[in-house]
Amino acid sequence: MAFQKPPGTQDILPGTTEKWQFVEEKARDICRRFNFREIRTPMFEATELFQRGVGETTDIVEKEMYTFTDRGNRSLTLRPEGTAGVMRAYVENKLYGEPDVSKLYYVGPMFRYERQQAGRYRQFHQFGIEALGSDSPALDAEVIALAYTFYNEVGLKGVRVEINSVGTSAIRAQFRDKLLAFLLPKRELLCKDCQSRMERNPLRVLDCKTDQHHFEGAPSILDSLDEECRIHFEQVQSNLQAMNIPFTINPKLVRGLDYYTHTAFEFKAEGIGSIDTIGGGGRFNGLIEEIGGPSQPGVGLAIGLERTVMLLAGQEAELEKRSRIDIYLVALGEQAEQRISGLLYELRLRGISAERDYLGRKMKAQMKSADRLQARFTAILGDDELDRGEIALKNMANGEQRTVALSQLADELIQSLKGDV
Amino acid sequence: MAFQKPPGTQDILPGTTEKWQFVEEKARDICRRFNFREIRTPMFEATELFQRGVGETTDIVEKEMYTFTDRGNRSLTLRPEGTAGVMRAYVENKLYGEPDVSKLYYVGPMFRYERQQAGRYRQFHQFGIEALGSDSPALDAEVIALAYTFYNEVGLKGVRVEINSVGTSAIRAQFRDKLLAFLLPKRELLCKDCQSRMERNPLRVLDCKTDQHHFEGAPSILDSLDEECRIHFEQVQSNLQAMNIPFTINPKLVRGLDYYTHTAFEFKAEGIGSIDTIGGGGRFNGLIEEIGGPSQPGVGLAIGLERTVMLLAGQEAELEKRSRIDIYLVALGEQAEQRISGLLYELRLRGISAERDYLGRKMKAQMKSADRLQARFTAILGDDELDRGEIALKNMANGEQRTVALSQLADELIQSLKGDV
Repeated sequence: MAFQKPPGTQDILPGTTEKWQFVEEKARDICRRFNFREIRTPMFEATELFQRGVGETTDIVEKEMYTFTDRGNRSLTLRPEGTAGVMRAYVENKLYGEPDVSKLYYVGPMFRYERQQAGRYRQFHQFGIEALGSDSPALDAEVIALAYTFYNEVGLKGVRVEINSVGTSAIRAQFRDKLLAFLLPKRELLCKDCQSRMERNPLRVLDCKTDQHHFEGAPSILDSLDEECRIHFEQVQSNLQAMNIPFTINPKLVRGLDYYTHTAFEFKAEGIGSIDTIGGGGRFNGLIEEIGGPSQPGVGLAIGLERTVMLLAGQEAELEKRSRIDIYLVALGEQAEQRISGLLYELRLRGISAERDYLGRKMKAQMKSADRLQARFTAILGDDELDRGEIALKNMANGEQRTVALSQLADELIQSLKGDV
Repeated sequence: MAFQKPPGTQDILPGTTEKWQFVEEKARDICRRFNFREIRTPMFEATELFQRGVGETTDIVEKEMYTFTDRGNRSLTLRPEGTAGVMRAYVENKLYGEPDVSKLYYVGPMFRYERQQAGRYRQFHQFGIEALGSDSPALDAEVIALAYTFYNEVGLKGVRVEINSVGTSAIRAQFRDKLLAFLLPKRELLCKDCQSRMERNPLRVLDCKTDQHHFEGAPSILDSLDEECRIHFEQVQSNLQAMNIPFTINPKLVRGLDYYTHTAFEFKAEGIGSIDTIGGGGRFNGLIEEIGGPSQPGVGLAIGLERTVMLLAGQEAELEKRSRIDIYLVALGEQAEQRISGLLYELRLRGISAERDYLGRKMKAQMKSADRLQARFTAILGDDELDRGEIALKNMANGEQRTVALSQLADELIQSLKGDV
């Protein structure tokens, strides 16, 4: 019998892994420049952490978690998102005791048992950042700027930044009542999703894609903000302006999670036929307390890497460079074959990517293999060359061929590779 | 209530993640040079894959798997090792149909519910490679060379390479009988582990750390090898010699897994008080068929990254470089504070790692923060400087201070950073 990958998971194969590597390296490099440092938390946590940290009534916790009991009878859950684990680690390792703001990032797999559909995976991957310990609006703007820079530098075109302030939980409670007063008379006109959301999280009703025409004249949360919230939101905007980051204010923007305070934001890109949210986040000043930690403010975001990799553009040259090898060594005859192992290893020790045949193929088939690997150079070693201590080196871009001493091959090649881009 | 990480898992925090990044980047770079390309398979697979691919009677499958039932009633298991998933992907994605040998690597978490003890984790991390589709002994040697290079370049001292040939499964069956004939009379003298292993996997008895004195005169598998196996093993050795890789032959070396054929090998390093196996692998010519694929030979290895990171040495300079930032910007006064956002962002866009204060601290506290971050430069912007369009730039290594135009800060800094290593 042949086995298959579990439904909703994917194999990422050579040819595609290079895209992932590129995107992840870019994320890491941008984090370095913004002084965010990596944290790695376990793939699973106590189930209750997510019930508390994500919210018991969210779709994630209600329907989508991979929960299991380990051999020690603990209820564990594969992490459905990255924030709860990072908060848990921040509290457990007492990072809040450090004098500076904790600026953390993570990259890795997350797990949600979702209905199968195109572009949705049950194991998916996120790049996320969390800045903990400061309520400065400059930090909200910086988190947005980091994501904006990330999208730009991986080549995603036309990414739009939308921001909103969702105030404090007290303000949201007031606004919720106002909004319900507006929505209730229209209840029967709205879609099933909206009707169900009206009970669980009425703010998200405004987000509905089909019912927008019913929401004209709906109250705006921005009119409900108090002085402090208003100033915070204004300063987020002036910081974004100082960085020349274009944004629009979307007063209907609320995220799927309950814990946001003040700033909420999303990044949108044109997908296949529609505008998709490709990342988002916000400030969460009550979350750390909610999971049993001290009162510490935080702001963060998460970016789905599947879509980023899918929408990747303009990186062809960079990706091709990653798939090519520097040299393919061809051995003709048994003695030459013996010599090739040492030669190949010497090149690799010197930083050169080098390959050979392992299938006992004839020269023509080996040269085809060199072509498939887009080798920049080939070198052919026959018994004659071996006797003279030489090898024939060929530049595959221009066909130039010359004979070099075996002992000089690495040096010559390093020189030639520098010239040949 | 405060949450804790699940037992046997770890949080990897800033200060340590840099070590992991270094080790992983090294692994990736060496794989590039050896023309191994990355494959990523899911964190979990069908449970049966591991029963077939790891072996039903192994400790891993019998006692250590994290097995659970998903919401679709499938039995899934968090991967306890990397090979089975890669083989499954190789078969499912028909990589065996490609004309060249599939040279694959993976880096990532694995999961085993092990008894808790120092240095053992239930979520641990491996770097592994698999070369599939060729039975060339040059490839066995190359796999060994890759690991040897990896250990060398991350700075692990005194790593010893031990190799053996475990023949084919037919040869092992014959040898098993010979060995049992030798062991049975001594049965009562041996430790409990040995007695239990005599029934399940007698070859592993010879590996016992406490009973070595009973094994003098035991038959050696090397005497049971047939012509083909002997030639293969000799060629592995001559290829290693061609690369100047030192090794010793250990005829008692068998790995914990049943599927090895021909070459088996291990890497050992001096740990805390004892010699520890820090990695190993071998050839597995029957495994792909075993999990339902075509008859294709393979050779691979796995390296535990926890120990590699723990034993890491001589990388202090490299690691320090990764923890430092290029510049810390200090703003004095409200106007300067406004300007800082844009300035900081400009530097970051230019590739510079730059930081500021987010806690409204006084200048002295900000300078302390710059010290903690080991900033190579600081720049102070007061209202006066702002009026003149200038900023005071200080090299923290030598204390040199000069005034530069705000518009020139990025250029000046890039120049200075080049000079200052």
